[in-house]
Amino acid sequence: MESSEEQKLQVRKLELSDKSKGFIELLQQLTVCDSVSDKDFEDRFRELNARAEDHRVLVIEDDLSGKIVATGSVFIERKFIRNCGKVGHIEDVVVDANARGMQLGKKIINALTDYAHSLGCYKVILDCNVENKAFYEKCGYKQKEIQMVKYFI
Amino acid sequence: MESSEEQKLQVRKLELSDKSKGFIELLQQLTVCDSVSDKDFEDRFRELNARAEDHRVLVIEDDLSGKIVATGSVFIERKFIRNCGKVGHIEDVVVDANARGMQLGKKIINALTDYAHSLGCYKVILDCNVENKAFYEKCGYKQKEIQMVKYFI
Repeated sequence: MESSEEQKLQVRKLELSDKSKGFIELLQQLTVCDSVSDKDFEDRFRELNARAEDHRVLVIEDDLSGKIVATGSVFIERKFIRNCGKVGHIEDVVVDANARGMQLGKKIINALTDYAHSLGCYKVILDCNVENKAFYEKCGYKQKEIQMVKYFI
Repeated sequence: MESSEEQKLQVRKLELSDKSKGFIELLQQLTVCDSVSDKDFEDRFRELNARAEDHRVLVIEDDLSGKIVATGSVFIERKFIRNCGKVGHIEDVVVDANARGMQLGKKIINALTDYAHSLGCYKVILDCNVENKAFYEKCGYKQKEIQMVKYFI
């Protein structure tokens, strides 16, 4: 029973139809994210698709409910340092509050990390609250620097 | 005299010819950065130029010495959150050890920040050592989160 449930919770790329499967509502659990019009969603989706290798948004759909229950994204930065190396930046990771305890967050992080690795990145970085440090340590990450921010709004 | 010197230290976009003006040697003051072949440099330069709006590398050239004495880059991440908002990520900021005390770091950070703002980013973020926190605070940044990293090498 449990293994059949696991098979229903595979990581895949974001699809245009995921907007109607609660993708935006899921992001709203993370941060400020007003409702997005179908057109704005499609425009942004196509912009990201045009950068498909450089920017990947992954999701986990619960086939039983037809809802997106976890997501995260990674984009690839091309540098001159490290012999013209590449770095993966993980952003916007969230697991549905009703789907906690099933290791979906770890599954998403591992998939994003593996994707960056497969493209030849020499490291992957992300910023998080201190409260989430232990979770990312379980995913093989270590604290290194501090994040500074400047808001325009 | 001082103002004429300032005029010689303008921020501009990275150019292909900057490799012969010490750009790579400057980056070597920041981190691991082996010498880069002309071909690798040109390939990476053209890759970034193809993403010109999304990724900008700025430099300051000292016209007196013909050397690049400061650099920094910003790339633009497109999100679904914040009403399909954009975020600027600042990376690889370094000022030549012989050119400290002339506010070149601040000049570079301000130019990168302004660029991200002009593209409609709702915030700019960067990761730094704790030792550099005070410098970024002078540039209008505030500490928010912590950075986690996973290395593949």
